[in-house]
Amino acid sequence: MAVLAEDCTGMPPWDTIAIIGVGLIGGSVGLAVRGRQLARHVVGCGRSPENLELARERGAIDSASATIAAAVEQANLVVICTPVEQIVGHALAAAEHCPPGALITDAGSTKAAIVQELAAKLDGRPASFVGAHPLAGGEKQGAGAADARLFENKLVVVTPAPASRPGDVQAVERFWSLLGARVERMTPEAHDHAVASISHLPHLLAAALAAATPQEHLPLAAAGWSDTTRIASGDAELWTQILRQNRRNVLSALSGVERCLEEFRAALENEDYELLTRLLKAGKNARDAVGS
Amino acid sequence: MAVLAEDCTGMPPWDTIAIIGVGLIGGSVGLAVRGRQLARHVVGCGRSPENLELARERGAIDSASATIAAAVEQANLVVICTPVEQIVGHALAAAEHCPPGALITDAGSTKAAIVQELAAKLDGRPASFVGAHPLAGGEKQGAGAADARLFENKLVVVTPAPASRPGDVQAVERFWSLLGARVERMTPEAHDHAVASISHLPHLLAAALAAATPQEHLPLAAAGWSDTTRIASGDAELWTQILRQNRRNVLSALSGVERCLEEFRAALENEDYELLTRLLKAGKNARDAVGS
Repeated sequence: MAVLAEDCTGMPPWDTIAIIGVGLIGGSVGLAVRGRQLARHVVGCGRSPENLELARERGAIDSASATIAAAVEQANLVVICTPVEQIVGHALAAAEHCPPGALITDAGSTKAAIVQELAAKLDGRPASFVGAHPLAGGEKQGAGAADARLFENKLVVVTPAPASRPGDVQAVERFWSLLGARVERMTPEAHDHAVASISHLPHLLAAALAAATPQEHLPLAAAGWSDTTRIASGDAELWTQILRQNRRNVLSALSGVERCLEEFRAALENEDYELLTRLLKAGKNARDAVGS
Repeated sequence: MAVLAEDCTGMPPWDTIAIIGVGLIGGSVGLAVRGRQLARHVVGCGRSPENLELARERGAIDSASATIAAAVEQANLVVICTPVEQIVGHALAAAEHCPPGALITDAGSTKAAIVQELAAKLDGRPASFVGAHPLAGGEKQGAGAADARLFENKLVVVTPAPASRPGDVQAVERFWSLLGARVERMTPEAHDHAVASISHLPHLLAAALAAATPQEHLPLAAAGWSDTTRIASGDAELWTQILRQNRRNVLSALSGVERCLEEFRAALENEDYELLTRLLKAGKNARDAVGS
């Protein structure tokens, strides 16, 4: 717990936080950390100098580094906000160059593969990784879309490995809590199973619906179509990585919705309107249970 | 065109407008008509005295009638805002009791069956029907959810029958325009074909996704799931009627999205991530073309 200063000293909880990948999520982490004075210094690192400069201008970071090695040199906490297939490589690079005792977390939409690989590769190293997934974001990209309040009242799932130290897990949970989020702890595997249904399958369905809509009908699109397909605007490469990492769970969730669509088809083909109403009510009940 | 007073007189364009069914849509018509001073008097008619009283308190109607016969007695324009399977019956009742030359329109989500049946049954009668469908609304219900601005900049499709009089069609188009809507004219058949893809299939998919989501994962629902399933909260009985009236078009639109989901499944099963990215991009392109 060396990374956490005591609250009663009036010092920020972290001295230096490094953010690797300062897009929508990383930029929002930076804005929230700086707005809530959770660190003395926030360093950003990313591929695009223009985006880093935008992040600095918007107040998401204090300074920018071109390399992970330089960015994490003095970091007590490193937050990896890059696409899921880059997180392991970036976390290993951070672990190699950060001070002993530094803590590394991430914001990836998948967890099992990342946590397992890092648990194996960081075993015995002085830096610790505790994975996390903020269920917040959206289809926009880049530091220009960052929002200091992005995590407020949103759920962040923290996914320790079996060997994670309790103090490290608590420190990562405290970090996301201090950004305003509700934190829930799950195993990486339970997380991936759940988000396949609640996040990855909706993306796939939204994309399928948007792609299947004949172009000549798009001028008639109103709120219903727009809401139902909104997340299809997300970056296709990022989502390919997410669906690839969670392939088996997504295929199994897809089977569930396929079965449900077959029932809808049967109800319409057989003009079984009692069944149709029952299916619509099952959807309405699930949706109403969640609220707006 | 007897129903329209000249603009230059300073008189409202209609003397008396009757609204049959004063829920979200009918209540919003009333609020917009009264807010924009488009009629001297607005009469509401509906099954629920409580809802009619709420509509009156909210300023959506000037007075309430318990029967269609009484509501339309002095109406120049009748707007039928009841569920699609009741529209024909309500329009026939209105035609029987309204003054000669009165015009009847509706707000039903399906058009072909309604327009065809009314064209046959009203042939030679002194009242005229010109169907319409405002592509506005949402999953909420009742006069309490009515909104004077519901139709502003929204599309209203007006669907004349082959024998509709041009003056009647123009008067109905002018009515919806004066509520702030953009008006487009289509045949009832072309309308139903288009909304099967753009409105009815999204409802079916949203319901299937919501129903297929395992209950234990619902606490993790974030904006993605909530947006994608929002319209599943709509009334199941109303939507059964809509899907029944547009059954063939919906089945054909469903086939299109099923083919697309099969491609997604194949891409994931065969680990063909180029195909997966291509499918996601097709969805993104369609969604981006529509905008927020």
